[in-house]
Amino acid sequence: MEITEFRRAGHDLVDWMADYLNDVERLPVTPEVRPGDIRRSLPVSPPRTGEPAEQLMNDFGKLILPGMTHWGHPGFFAYFPSNASPPSMLAEMLTAAMGAQCMSWQTSPAATELEQVTMEWLRQMLGLPEGFTGVIQDTSSTATLVALLTARERATGFSAAIHGLQGPGQPLTVYASRERHSSVDKAVRLAGYGIESLRLIDLDDAYAMRPEALEAAITADVAQGMRPAAVVATTGTTGSTAIDPLRAIGEICRRHGVWLHVDASYAGSAAILPEKRWMIDGVEHADSFVFNPHKWLLVNFDCSAYFVRDVEALLRTFSASPEYLRTAHDAEVVNFRDWGIQLGRRFRALKLWWVIKSYGVEGLQAILRQHCEWAQAVAGWVSVDDRFELLAPVPLALVCFRLRPRAGEDLAAVNERNRELLARVNATRQVYLSHTVLGGRYTIRMAIGARATEARHVEEAWALIAASA
Amino acid sequence: MEITEFRRAGHDLVDWMADYLNDVERLPVTPEVRPGDIRRSLPVSPPRTGEPAEQLMNDFGKLILPGMTHWGHPGFFAYFPSNASPPSMLAEMLTAAMGAQCMSWQTSPAATELEQVTMEWLRQMLGLPEGFTGVIQDTSSTATLVALLTARERATGFSAAIHGLQGPGQPLTVYASRERHSSVDKAVRLAGYGIESLRLIDLDDAYAMRPEALEAAITADVAQGMRPAAVVATTGTTGSTAIDPLRAIGEICRRHGVWLHVDASYAGSAAILPEKRWMIDGVEHADSFVFNPHKWLLVNFDCSAYFVRDVEALLRTFSASPEYLRTAHDAEVVNFRDWGIQLGRRFRALKLWWVIKSYGVEGLQAILRQHCEWAQAVAGWVSVDDRFELLAPVPLALVCFRLRPRAGEDLAAVNERNRELLARVNATRQVYLSHTVLGGRYTIRMAIGARATEARHVEEAWALIAASA
Repeated sequence: MEITEFRRAGHDLVDWMADYLNDVERLPVTPEVRPGDIRRSLPVSPPRTGEPAEQLMNDFGKLILPGMTHWGHPGFFAYFPSNASPPSMLAEMLTAAMGAQCMSWQTSPAATELEQVTMEWLRQMLGLPEGFTGVIQDTSSTATLVALLTARERATGFSAAIHGLQGPGQPLTVYASRERHSSVDKAVRLAGYGIESLRLIDLDDAYAMRPEALEAAITADVAQGMRPAAVVATTGTTGSTAIDPLRAIGEICRRHGVWLHVDASYAGSAAILPEKRWMIDGVEHADSFVFNPHKWLLVNFDCSAYFVRDVEALLRTFSASPEYLRTAHDAEVVNFRDWGIQLGRRFRALKLWWVIKSYGVEGLQAILRQHCEWAQAVAGWVSVDDRFELLAPVPLALVCFRLRPRAGEDLAAVNERNRELLARVNATRQVYLSHTVLGGRYTIRMAIGARATEARHVEEAWALIAASA
Repeated sequence: MEITEFRRAGHDLVDWMADYLNDVERLPVTPEVRPGDIRRSLPVSPPRTGEPAEQLMNDFGKLILPGMTHWGHPGFFAYFPSNASPPSMLAEMLTAAMGAQCMSWQTSPAATELEQVTMEWLRQMLGLPEGFTGVIQDTSSTATLVALLTARERATGFSAAIHGLQGPGQPLTVYASRERHSSVDKAVRLAGYGIESLRLIDLDDAYAMRPEALEAAITADVAQGMRPAAVVATTGTTGSTAIDPLRAIGEICRRHGVWLHVDASYAGSAAILPEKRWMIDGVEHADSFVFNPHKWLLVNFDCSAYFVRDVEALLRTFSASPEYLRTAHDAEVVNFRDWGIQLGRRFRALKLWWVIKSYGVEGLQAILRQHCEWAQAVAGWVSVDDRFELLAPVPLALVCFRLRPRAGEDLAAVNERNRELLARVNATRQVYLSHTVLGGRYTIRMAIGARATEARHVEEAWALIAASA
């Protein structure tokens, strides 16, 4: 593709992007395709010769677009938001054009230093203590694995990476609440602890970890000769945005010398609101903290902000300096390749920088506040409708609810009625909500947070749910 | 940012991108900045209120651009190429606009199925056997960790993820050549084998693994009660693009029931050339194979193609299906979240699709062939210049050379002269080359493969090196 063709196609594409942002709400939020439909519509072998840009765009529009779930649709209330925003999209364009590989300071000094600056901005925005240093990871799954690997190394005096977890040694244990994210289990398996080493701590009525149950579990394990290595506390569980009590948990961790990792993937963004800072009260006891600007802070996926207190422990776990990567500046600079699993790194700080600059802290605060208010409104509508009930508190912008059981109806039956309601609502393809199970109860989740969502979309979504009930 | 502002800024940005592609060669390939310069030029705190798009672009041009290393510069000969190309950039724009999170089939059916189709195209393009199934990972570091984790699980009967590597059990060992990439060591550490379990296998004169040394190491370990779990063979080492002999290594692995992972990060792209297929002769014995379309195949970073034979073993190692991710289609579809570490996934298949469609297989072949021819030309110039010598064969597009030792000159002195030569050449900022150490000898690496590089740039680079010598 010649640059003249690129320029022409790029202009067409910008118009397509702007039109898409304007018109996405007129598309079905989820596609009407069955497994295999799209695969069968594509050639089984690659083309021998090249095709013009128009053909690429036509095929995209004809074959791919009708098979997309539109995460930026104002009727997207499923999972948690994974946002995109105009300034973030523009920054991704620059990142793509330069194609810089930001593994080391030397391979792109500006990328490294902008990452340092924007992560410090985020630290201030969330009110995290000064001792935390930030690095961008791709996802929370990765960040949590990074945390549990660092905890493993610290607990073994940095010997697991040398001798392995094989052979004799005090068995390590990890703790998280019954409502932790599945990536915690995955990290425990991958890091070699073994899933049998994961202790699931009981919950209070709001689905948050009970600190006294944590303390009991740690004490029991120590008595059995185990070495408690890490606790993962969740600020805003995926199920219901339950908030584990960080201060109490953190004090227990301090007392027992256990690494405390805080998974605030979704809820962390809300800490830019002073009135929500209570959620992370006690975070000064944490050793690491992750949240995803790509969820609720309008930065395009992927951009996970990982903060760590003991940078030295992180580097001892992850650094590698083969000859070919050594540079004259290594002693004076940060080489972010040593701060995680991947050697290669995209220039992700640029989109973070542009989003913060474009909205300003107050602009972002206003948007998140609005989402929380709408969630309160939905919670209110649920409460006053006799057919429905809330299943969890609504501290942020996720509402968990269901159709109430009828007199004498058993759990399986009411669960089935709610499953059917959700299927009926989603089948309209005007909105997309997802589900979880809380205490055995099938739960409909309405997560408000897509950038394009306005008050009317929330109202319409509730009207649709109420009418479908 | 309103959509009208986005549209206007987007058009400006497309012109900037096209101009950048046209003009990048007039910029210094590496920036003239010192550690901390950029950081100090940026505010220590985030802006309270938002800024218009023009301000974002102005600040980028003034503060960030002068601090970038330009990986797309035609004078970029360092490391290996990390390419970007016009169709790939356009695809990244679409990916950014839609912001889809492609963890499950349901969360974007088209993304999942396009990934299946394009990975199958790549398999055909490289001539990999039919038994391989592909998935896109972000980087080779991740893919190699995925391979070693899967190998760990297979070697322990899938019990390490359950009971952990802790406690009794046959100690596991891993094998790779002395010239393996540093990500192998990192993966061995992170996966819990412990770096002491990594056996570094001796090299032949061309820096490739000696299969008989591998066999001897495995046999010795088995005799000591170890359980050999994985061999990592490298097709195109980072130091000198040495090619480990896959057929001989593969037969040893088969005989001993060891997982064979092939790290073809850079060189794998060259397998689209029938005349380079000898490199992967014997690949049918491999259990997994990774190469990076983001290196030499004109796809924007990140896009790492990971092929695996035993999908079931991969899924048993990585799958997690918490309630909130279950969908009605799970039994009929592929959910790529279960194929690696991360839950969240960008829509990476789109850029791969557009690059293959835009260039066609023959177009890509012509580009790679050209790079290999230019490398042969440079190798020829090195050979006929009495001051220089080649330090390794040139099977692909990387030339390893140095100034010859003078009579009586010791290794330290000749290394220092070469270090100075490289520094002098790079200080012009017209070209950027990197180095390695081969057999103790400081080695200048000239990797040809930036998309913008033309014959004249290669000639000028050599003229500059020769004049600086």
